[in-house]
Amino acid sequence: MPEQETLWRRAAQERRATALAHPNIAFIKYWGNQDDEMVLPANPSLSMNLAAFTTVTTVAFDDTLPADTLTINQTEAGGDALARVGKILDLVRQASGLHSRARVESVSNVPMGAGIASSAAAFAALSLAASAAAGLPRDEAALSRLARRGSGSACRSVPGGFCRWDTGDDESSVAVSIAPAEHWALWDVVAVVSEAHKQVGSSGGHPLAATSDLHPARIAGAGRRVEVCQQAILARDLAAMGPVIEEDAVMMHAVMMTGRPPLYYWTPATMALILAVQQWREDGIPVYFTIDAGPNVHCICPAGAVEAVAARARRVPGVQRVITSGPGGPARLVPAA
Amino acid sequence: MPEQETLWRRAAQERRATALAHPNIAFIKYWGNQDDEMVLPANPSLSMNLAAFTTVTTVAFDDTLPADTLTINQTEAGGDALARVGKILDLVRQASGLHSRARVESVSNVPMGAGIASSAAAFAALSLAASAAAGLPRDEAALSRLARRGSGSACRSVPGGFCRWDTGDDESSVAVSIAPAEHWALWDVVAVVSEAHKQVGSSGGHPLAATSDLHPARIAGAGRRVEVCQQAILARDLAAMGPVIEEDAVMMHAVMMTGRPPLYYWTPATMALILAVQQWREDGIPVYFTIDAGPNVHCICPAGAVEAVAARARRVPGVQRVITSGPGGPARLVPAA
Repeated sequence: MPEQETLWRRAAQERRATALAHPNIAFIKYWGNQDDEMVLPANPSLSMNLAAFTTVTTVAFDDTLPADTLTINQTEAGGDALARVGKILDLVRQASGLHSRARVESVSNVPMGAGIASSAAAFAALSLAASAAAGLPRDEAALSRLARRGSGSACRSVPGGFCRWDTGDDESSVAVSIAPAEHWALWDVVAVVSEAHKQVGSSGGHPLAATSDLHPARIAGAGRRVEVCQQAILARDLAAMGPVIEEDAVMMHAVMMTGRPPLYYWTPATMALILAVQQWREDGIPVYFTIDAGPNVHCICPAGAVEAVAARARRVPGVQRVITSGPGGPARLVPAA
Repeated sequence: MPEQETLWRRAAQERRATALAHPNIAFIKYWGNQDDEMVLPANPSLSMNLAAFTTVTTVAFDDTLPADTLTINQTEAGGDALARVGKILDLVRQASGLHSRARVESVSNVPMGAGIASSAAAFAALSLAASAAAGLPRDEAALSRLARRGSGSACRSVPGGFCRWDTGDDESSVAVSIAPAEHWALWDVVAVVSEAHKQVGSSGGHPLAATSDLHPARIAGAGRRVEVCQQAILARDLAAMGPVIEEDAVMMHAVMMTGRPPLYYWTPATMALILAVQQWREDGIPVYFTIDAGPNVHCICPAGAVEAVAARARRVPGVQRVITSGPGGPARLVPAA
């Protein structure tokens, strides 16, 4: 991407950059940390960026600003959101020697309440835009590491396509692409169900992982599941990948439901979809489910099965809408809006 | 029970006995064997007999019979049912030196399709009636051991009230009562839901337990959960007992859902009830759930809460009927019908 070099150089000159990033869906889940402060995960994970959804973030450093400012979809944001953005900006200022405050403007089309973690796209875009605007060298590992500090799974939205995030220390625990988006037209058909039950956000949930007696067993097997899933992705073999992603998703929810206190994200409609996906498979449609920290069911299938899966998902009682996406590219700089 | 001695002596003289037994609901579940043939369980378990349901079985040894015969609710039974009964009769013949074949008549009011394991009551009653009719000594441990060979959880229907079944070898792995039925008026309000999904019976499921990566963790913690539950029963402390029975039930289903192949017993209505029970607790009703190898939800509550729980359970979408039971006594001989 030669124009990325050009945009990166210009950003450093202008102390201003605009970056675009996609959210991602994890096939092998991230749940629980070895180190909550440094966001070092308890287990390796594997995901796919989602092309249909984007967050575009502009960071402009400005000596005249008394404090960092943040707008999200044209609305001024403060509190926790601004504090989390400020933490990333502080790390960038620390690395670059820059002292200016920054204006951050973020625009996202990640649907709200769809259970697609918008924070992954948000922190990937922010990390890129802020690093470029501050004149830091263009270094994917450093960007993934920085995004990780904002929200763990954001590190997987920095590289493109299918990404693997390994455990390790602050230096080594970054995501890398195992295959670009063009490698495999695998789609995510998200069945959005009513959120009938109160939820705990995933940032509040991660510290609870270790309270479940099932957590060590999930962690112990995650490396094997990542390997199986990675080989299956490289071979474009959904039949090999499917059972292990379903197993991993159920394991994560089992850890949640057996924590102290327990967390229940599944609703009746979630359960209906879990059973329906298996029925669709028996009917000959190649599709497997995964479920994030929420009630919605992500139906993973080849591009050719999207219509059949979406049509069936819409008929499952409790499904409110269906949204779809294929694999997305890496976080990248874009010309200023 | 002095009349038990009398009935036992008379049975030996007449080579004929009638026994009554209750099914049981497990608070800490039995799932998976160390030894499938000897039915030695992978973990200790804890249950309560259910007074409302009974199986009454008559065994009559008769030198003129060419083969064992079996009727269940006045209907002649063969095949697998007769083979399993024959196995218990063979063990009794082996222990007693008796060679006669037997006529077995069993009558049960355990509701079909309600997810209450009728085999526990059936094998407890059969073991008692056959042992008495064969003139074996009256020995609760021997009877529990024999019932275990027919169907694991049947060993817990031999002693009365609240029963604990420990792991061990053929000699030591038997159930004992930790408190009689009169100790605590704890009730089981069974919310029977439609069986929308094809099921695998628990005898087919036990060998799958070890195929789940979560199985060792469930086993490792089962002893602790049995201890917590036993102390809570002795103290009649539902608030101490409740979280551990819910945790254990979810763990068993997590093992089922992550086996190879996975077993899904939960339906949308199951999930609705899991969430509803938590809501009822927030509303001030003392109630906790457990779920056997099926979709129905057993709501465990004190006698005083049965009406409130049953009324609410009937209003949960997908619940077809509600049946209730308090704690039941031991398997026992009864006068011939």
